[in-house]
Amino acid sequence: MTLHPVPTPTEMLAVALAAARTGYEEGGVPVGAALFGPDGELLGSGQNRRVQDGDPATHGETAAFRAAGRRPDYAGTTMVTTLSPCFFCAGLIRQFRIPRLVVGEARTFGGQHAWLAEHGVEVTLLDDPECAELMSRFAKEQPETWLEDIGGPE
Amino acid sequence: MTLHPVPTPTEMLAVALAAARTGYEEGGVPVGAALFGPDGELLGSGQNRRVQDGDPATHGETAAFRAAGRRPDYAGTTMVTTLSPCFFCAGLIRQFRIPRLVVGEARTFGGQHAWLAEHGVEVTLLDDPECAELMSRFAKEQPETWLEDIGGPE
Repeated sequence: MTLHPVPTPTEMLAVALAAARTGYEEGGVPVGAALFGPDGELLGSGQNRRVQDGDPATHGETAAFRAAGRRPDYAGTTMVTTLSPCFFCAGLIRQFRIPRLVVGEARTFGGQHAWLAEHGVEVTLLDDPECAELMSRFAKEQPETWLEDIGGPE
Repeated sequence: MTLHPVPTPTEMLAVALAAARTGYEEGGVPVGAALFGPDGELLGSGQNRRVQDGDPATHGETAAFRAAGRRPDYAGTTMVTTLSPCFFCAGLIRQFRIPRLVVGEARTFGGQHAWLAEHGVEVTLLDDPECAELMSRFAKEQPETWLEDIGGPE
């Protein structure tokens, strides 16, 4: 019997950050995310596709959720994202009752992780400097694309 | 000079309902939506793609939003949907500051149109019997798919 080791929040974040870095290399908004199952297995990961596919409806979290495919429910799952989720992605987590959220950082964008925590989601905020550096670099390089991705200035 | 007549809420709903009926004929969750521009022009429309594409991240509203393509902002736009939006789709509307929402019906699902109204969205609820009939028919025919699409029983 092989036990599948359950990844730590930091290990899960590494998967999301790798997706975000791929997005950056593609010229896209560098937000990445991953969905992990109850036993710590990776169900899916992905990055924002606004620039790559001209698709404004695919943020990091929605990309990971889509990549995980259809499931009857999300009991025991964990969403990990490099950036605190916007209302669109927070709504996804709340609607599908994803019980745990790991957030890379919330310095560069005032996302809705606290709103999710108020509604019962177990939130871990890692305040990871690599996530913040990548996001702030992109926001400086492509400020209009970044503002477009979050629906304008906060 | 040709004036583009601005469609009424009922006329906009007809576009969303046509997409929902297409979804039903495809064997999918029959929720359709459309996004209209400030001058009443149709920007995009679509239907839930869970069954058709195995894509749990595409609800009616996200399909319409994607079909409209990239935009710098959503000032003056109207989202119309056959069914009161779930938190995922309500989050989309709120994040991107879509100022107006037309809802076909909220009888068959307790969506978040009131939450959006509280946060400044101008909501028109039409309580359309054709939208309700289509949705309740599907929920009876495929109850498991419907529950899967909203993250389980309310």
